[in-house]
Amino acid sequence: MTSQELTDTLGGPDGPTGDARAQLVAMRDWDLADLINSLPLAAAATALRALPPERASTLIDQPSLRRRAAILEQLEPALAARILDGASADERTQILRDMSPHECHRLLPSMKQEARQEAERLLKYPPRTAGGIMTTEFVRLAPTMTVREALAQIRTVARDMESIYACYVLDERGALLGAASLRDLVMADADVLVTEIMRRKPITADVGEPQGQVAIKISKYNLLAVPVLESDSHVVGFVTVDDVIDVMVEEDTERALRMGAVEPGALDEPYMITPLTRMVRKRASWLVVLFLSEMLTATAMSFFEDEIARAVVLALFVPLIISSGGNSGSQAATLVIRAMALGEVRLSDWWRVVRREVLSGLALGLILGTIGFLRIALWTIFTDIYGPHWPLVALTVGVSLVGVVLWGTLSGSTLPLILKRLGADPATSSAPFVATLVDVTGLVIYFSVAWVILRGTVL
Amino acid sequence: MTSQELTDTLGGPDGPTGDARAQLVAMRDWDLADLINSLPLAAAATALRALPPERASTLIDQPSLRRRAAILEQLEPALAARILDGASADERTQILRDMSPHECHRLLPSMKQEARQEAERLLKYPPRTAGGIMTTEFVRLAPTMTVREALAQIRTVARDMESIYACYVLDERGALLGAASLRDLVMADADVLVTEIMRRKPITADVGEPQGQVAIKISKYNLLAVPVLESDSHVVGFVTVDDVIDVMVEEDTERALRMGAVEPGALDEPYMITPLTRMVRKRASWLVVLFLSEMLTATAMSFFEDEIARAVVLALFVPLIISSGGNSGSQAATLVIRAMALGEVRLSDWWRVVRREVLSGLALGLILGTIGFLRIALWTIFTDIYGPHWPLVALTVGVSLVGVVLWGTLSGSTLPLILKRLGADPATSSAPFVATLVDVTGLVIYFSVAWVILRGTVL
Repeated sequence: MTSQELTDTLGGPDGPTGDARAQLVAMRDWDLADLINSLPLAAAATALRALPPERASTLIDQPSLRRRAAILEQLEPALAARILDGASADERTQILRDMSPHECHRLLPSMKQEARQEAERLLKYPPRTAGGIMTTEFVRLAPTMTVREALAQIRTVARDMESIYACYVLDERGALLGAASLRDLVMADADVLVTEIMRRKPITADVGEPQGQVAIKISKYNLLAVPVLESDSHVVGFVTVDDVIDVMVEEDTERALRMGAVEPGALDEPYMITPLTRMVRKRASWLVVLFLSEMLTATAMSFFEDEIARAVVLALFVPLIISSGGNSGSQAATLVIRAMALGEVRLSDWWRVVRREVLSGLALGLILGTIGFLRIALWTIFTDIYGPHWPLVALTVGVSLVGVVLWGTLSGSTLPLILKRLGADPATSSAPFVATLVDVTGLVIYFSVAWVILRGTVL
Repeated sequence: MTSQELTDTLGGPDGPTGDARAQLVAMRDWDLADLINSLPLAAAATALRALPPERASTLIDQPSLRRRAAILEQLEPALAARILDGASADERTQILRDMSPHECHRLLPSMKQEARQEAERLLKYPPRTAGGIMTTEFVRLAPTMTVREALAQIRTVARDMESIYACYVLDERGALLGAASLRDLVMADADVLVTEIMRRKPITADVGEPQGQVAIKISKYNLLAVPVLESDSHVVGFVTVDDVIDVMVEEDTERALRMGAVEPGALDEPYMITPLTRMVRKRASWLVVLFLSEMLTATAMSFFEDEIARAVVLALFVPLIISSGGNSGSQAATLVIRAMALGEVRLSDWWRVVRREVLSGLALGLILGTIGFLRIALWTIFTDIYGPHWPLVALTVGVSLVGVVLWGTLSGSTLPLILKRLGADPATSSAPFVATLVDVTGLVIYFSVAWVILRGTVL
């Protein structure tokens, strides 16, 4: 059966044939996830129904499977609960979080007691924190164990565990004494105590720590896992390098979508099969918000209608002026956001940032202003479009560019700091603000400069 | 000694005191990397000189240390070579790649023979490929070994290895038979053959495979490492999850910088200590390119100078029209680029993409066009700025918005496909093209629509 035939069967009214079932079961989890990702929601649910429940559990455990919550919502609650029972604790929590609260509360009672209690406990931690993404099944070692005993313990308890690369030595009250990686244990002499080879004071994460910060820790210190501690230093779970990659992909995607004026969520369904009406509804919201704020440019320009009427030549440079302001603004914003993410710039540095950006903005403005001036001077050799007063027009454009680029640079660099101070994420919320702000003020700067330079001649 | 005093000592003319040296040696590698990242280049080199060479080697091995190549170039060649000798093969290659070819060839002869030959071999693989970022020190197991023998082998050979989580079973000619993780070995019965527990047909990477693709494999399949094969299926090394995180951070950063009109490389040095002249030079290049291409808007508008002179009201909506085209274009580009990255859209789908985007663009254009029309109709209650023919002006703006948004959507969605076809990376090269293209054509659409609707009345 070809992939297309398989897809057709799953989407068809009769459901999958025995052949199709066998073929689904024979596929590797990730290939199966890819196939299901390309299906409409109803067919995806049919595919899950066609699998033995244990297999459906390992499939639903794959973060590369998209729309996991939505697919389970399509299934009968008893089946969905059974599939969730078999998933790992961290993925299960993730999926339940993505469901509507109503659906989540409908499923929980059908789940096995153990899985349900675990889920209820984990759901209490806020999403996007260490507690919200952690795995709770880890190997607990006692400080009295030898390396040999520790390895035996791992063999006994770790059969079903997602990762045994994180082994933590805990005292009798559950407080963290140290961490021993599987590598440390394998390389060590079997008769020494684990306390002799464990790493004391390992890097840890607080249960309420934002997931992005945990990701930075793991990637910066090249770790495989970080233990997650409650405030009383009890270990409640750990976050693995896999979780971190998922977090990075997720945050990177959201940032890219927001920068491109796309509401995260617009791509929950595959691009090709999302019904057009839903696609348009999801895309319209951001475009309308940006459109409404850009309307301010029409208001700003209406104040200068008389000037434009007297010197139409001014209108010609409006797009050039505002795009230069926008580009220099987004450049400065990108640099400052990145420097903040790297910890090179802190809120308290705002005055030093302003000083640097005033000087950079002036220099960049002078460069663009000079090019603009020369461009107009050069064009007058071939055309008299700029009139007899072209030197004044060129001067107006040049000086405006200095002002607009300086202002764009300054607002682009300080807005991220202001947004951070207000508690917003500068990386995702700066772009549209900077654009509108710089467009409107750029027009005001341009026409004010024109008014000063051209009064009595062109104006 | 406070961190500030330490920094001052390192930057001072006398070099670090004994106290300062002791304090540097006592720091954890990553804290030391953070400190050195905040120093000017000369002081960073002084700090490295103050460390024992073996310690400098472990420090230079940290990818979180920035400007590694530049710092080593500041050192005497013999010392730099000695520090590189002690680094791991993959990081060493990375650093040598970042050096100028001249400097690289000056260092290689001073390096130890083994490290030099290894480096020369790895430098032959293109950068940003599996071969270019792989580690070559891995545990080789024979198919005749038992699990017990395999673990003994690991204990013997793996003392200095970066990672022992990747163990590969090779036949006598070096071809890959299977992979056994440390977890598999620890969990298995000690007396069975490794061939019984190894994973046959593990996911592998080709030596020439782009690093981004290897990163996707590792993150999608939740792997700790991927073996890298030469074309004859010999294992030559492996890429770890750590390498992948570094690749993801690097590519994410470059993309964000390019989208923000920043040349990657502008932030090689910390934002706060880069000399202003260098900062301005690096920032100017992209701004000038964008400025020169945006000059086309002035040329485009000059063709419509007469229309603007007769109907100044047209000029008022120019920024609104071009920003709407730009926003819808970048939205469509973001969606298509993301769908391509996920494998949902292929080049051969171009016609289906066009069909979808024509319909989406029309719908989005109608939404914005209606809002634009209503805005002008509403304003005329309070002001007569739009003149007696305001319904025609409103119609012009509304119809133009439909055209501009449709065109923006269409070019934004197809340009990534075209760039991909031409072999360019659509994610990084689309943004500035879309902006200029949509700005210029948006103006042409707007004034053409105006000419048709307003001829005989306002025009």
